[in-house]
Amino acid sequence: MVMVEMGGGRLIVIGGNSGLNAALGVRKRNQNMEIHVFRADDYGKYSTCGIPFVLAGIIKDMEELRMDPEGFYEENDIKLHSSERVIRIDDDASSIETESGAVYDYDNLIIATGRMPFIPPIEGLELDGVSAISSYRDALKIQKMMQTAKSAVIIGAGAIGMEVGSAFAEGGIKTSIVEALPSIFPQTLDTDMALIVQKYMEKIVGLKIYTSSIVKAIKGSDRVECVLLGNGESIPSDLVIISTGVRPNTKLAVDSGIEVSITGAIATNSGMQVKKGRSYLDNVYAMGDCVEVINGVTNRPMILALASTAALQARVITENILGGSAILEPCVGPAAAVVSGMQVGSVGITSNGAAATGMKCIHGYGKALSRSFYYPGACEMHMKLLFTLDGRIIGAQIISWEDVKERTNMICMAIKNGAHLDELLSYERCYTPPLSMLTDAFTLALEDARGNMRKNV
Amino acid sequence: MVMVEMGGGRLIVIGGNSGLNAALGVRKRNQNMEIHVFRADDYGKYSTCGIPFVLAGIIKDMEELRMDPEGFYEENDIKLHSSERVIRIDDDASSIETESGAVYDYDNLIIATGRMPFIPPIEGLELDGVSAISSYRDALKIQKMMQTAKSAVIIGAGAIGMEVGSAFAEGGIKTSIVEALPSIFPQTLDTDMALIVQKYMEKIVGLKIYTSSIVKAIKGSDRVECVLLGNGESIPSDLVIISTGVRPNTKLAVDSGIEVSITGAIATNSGMQVKKGRSYLDNVYAMGDCVEVINGVTNRPMILALASTAALQARVITENILGGSAILEPCVGPAAAVVSGMQVGSVGITSNGAAATGMKCIHGYGKALSRSFYYPGACEMHMKLLFTLDGRIIGAQIISWEDVKERTNMICMAIKNGAHLDELLSYERCYTPPLSMLTDAFTLALEDARGNMRKNV
Repeated sequence: MVMVEMGGGRLIVIGGNSGLNAALGVRKRNQNMEIHVFRADDYGKYSTCGIPFVLAGIIKDMEELRMDPEGFYEENDIKLHSSERVIRIDDDASSIETESGAVYDYDNLIIATGRMPFIPPIEGLELDGVSAISSYRDALKIQKMMQTAKSAVIIGAGAIGMEVGSAFAEGGIKTSIVEALPSIFPQTLDTDMALIVQKYMEKIVGLKIYTSSIVKAIKGSDRVECVLLGNGESIPSDLVIISTGVRPNTKLAVDSGIEVSITGAIATNSGMQVKKGRSYLDNVYAMGDCVEVINGVTNRPMILALASTAALQARVITENILGGSAILEPCVGPAAAVVSGMQVGSVGITSNGAAATGMKCIHGYGKALSRSFYYPGACEMHMKLLFTLDGRIIGAQIISWEDVKERTNMICMAIKNGAHLDELLSYERCYTPPLSMLTDAFTLALEDARGNMRKNV
Repeated sequence: MVMVEMGGGRLIVIGGNSGLNAALGVRKRNQNMEIHVFRADDYGKYSTCGIPFVLAGIIKDMEELRMDPEGFYEENDIKLHSSERVIRIDDDASSIETESGAVYDYDNLIIATGRMPFIPPIEGLELDGVSAISSYRDALKIQKMMQTAKSAVIIGAGAIGMEVGSAFAEGGIKTSIVEALPSIFPQTLDTDMALIVQKYMEKIVGLKIYTSSIVKAIKGSDRVECVLLGNGESIPSDLVIISTGVRPNTKLAVDSGIEVSITGAIATNSGMQVKKGRSYLDNVYAMGDCVEVINGVTNRPMILALASTAALQARVITENILGGSAILEPCVGPAAAVVSGMQVGSVGITSNGAAATGMKCIHGYGKALSRSFYYPGACEMHMKLLFTLDGRIIGAQIISWEDVKERTNMICMAIKNGAHLDELLSYERCYTPPLSMLTDAFTLALEDARGNMRKNV
């Protein structure tokens, strides 16, 4: 990186999690700018994605997740304002006001206020033993409760709920997961693929999974004793985790007149600048779990609360603050989760998601081994690919015990390129017995889709 | 697959290895065609890529590599002519003649005569204990010799030589590898990246590696006793393996007047049809290690003796024999090898390869962990990326203990798409602590290349 002498000015970042990536990006290329980061809480930046693996005992200590160790802010010349909640942005004056009444001017501002857990209105939320799982504090509390818990219910079977369920079950806690929708991983997997994961989690890991089931109440006196389902069934439980998703934390934006869209998240332009009234503000950016992005398949706004999306947004904002003109492309949300060793990848749209927007698509399935049939350690890989009616790839779901993530990334690239299935079939692919089959799940899924496309025509 | 009633006719395939993939491809979609496969030898089809792993003891028995088990030809209705060498193709008469004098007519012909080991002219090749490593027979012989060998020299440090060297060293044989070129994996890695592998193989695995070294003679009386290098050094050895590459087996093509190009391989058009005189023959195809392909970076013909390339060619020929008009795209040769657990991936051009053709390029390095820094099992990943001067990706070299192959495949796709480094930086990528870093070796290599590009401008 060529370091050019740059002007100073002051950058204020509201939120000390993903926003810190942008702060660091700016600092890396500009030594003169004054950078302030405001946190509403008083703990550091932790990798929240790592929490389920601490609960699983795979990572020994929560402190290993710490991203801002002792000396971090000094080394990077960032002024951290801990436990200092920002309550107002005055974009006319280019200043912010904090809870304590202090006012700070800014030259550039980044809003990275993150998310809040979505807590459905259920009777009994106040009981001891009931917790959301969103923050460092939640994690510490759950870790402690796990030491004595014999049974647990997790409400919500998204990636976090499933990862925590896996951690509990492997820790010897009798664990049930209750999901209101018809299948687990409802945002990222179709029912057919979700059933592969469900079967494994039930038969091998020992989770009990209730789909299409709602929680009517959490029962107990002081401490939780059981979870009552809509069908009348009662699940005894010492511990209840609410993992029913997150919502963008937009109070500050709303209070400051910054536009929040119908998705409930802050709307930005592709340069990540926020909107007020009829115009985008030149020097106010927003990023992370509090903003919406454009879905690269449907072209509609959506919320994609992924650390990887925030990292791209940080890159765009850094570039733009430093005088560039970067944009965030529409997103297709490649994501992977690991539950009891099983890797679940997804990108683009699901059949369910397509149907919801009235999109018609063709799919293809492939099932093969992850290595040559004769190579030790080969395991099953399941792949579902989705295409537009004319054969452009728009989605993938991949399940195996290895090799899932980079396949998901590759298909992400293919979706962004509008790749046709015939083009995908024509690509060369590495073959070596310890790492692949000559004809693998991807090729089989492409061939299956081609057959389905011919039938469709 | 929709099965349509198709005409019969006779397909003859010369060569029972990769050619069999085309035979199976045709059979899958046409039940009426008569299919004959001629093999010059009398053993079955084995996965030769698996041989080093049998020698390493990872795969217990050579028979596990068998691809055409008992009953295979009957089930697929393929007439196998074992030990029946084809000595002439008469394309005017559309017939072939075998060593025994038998003549068979064909409607379509596939030449898949494969490769031969390239054996450099060295004194002492005839000694007991000296072997090439190319065929099933070689493998059985080497497996037997390994039982008593105390020391070994491998001549040639390409993927096969290195994989066999790893197998020997891990089997307790004191093993040296001699490479005439300045570094190991000379076709797929630049010296800087090769040194990472070399250091590991020497320090951890215990191989002794001689680069820029030529073998003057193999010495011994009856049995090999030592290998004499050009610098006068003598390496005691019970076993010598010649792995100095392969050459296309084109004798039949040459004898039949079919064009063999300056690369030494059979030249075909993109439909895989061979050339005779001034025209391509409609019904004579060639594929596998005996043909050349077009290099997708340099646009020059090259030999790419990969099973995966042959699989694509089989797909093209199948389509064309069944009345389609498929083509083989120019190739960028994604390949991976595994040596003592270390995965070595490469695709496109190397700096060395680019220099040899007068191409100028920009590179970028990235080094990161394969998983989040706090996740157990995270290991180092090294990546080198190559770009044209205007930033289009043309090559990659990747070294780690996991996650190399699909990254190589992804970059293969990027090269074929002519992706620019800014575009690659803009792609979303999966993040989950057990499987990735938020900013990984790929992103770091892209950023490094972007820095180098700016300097260059």
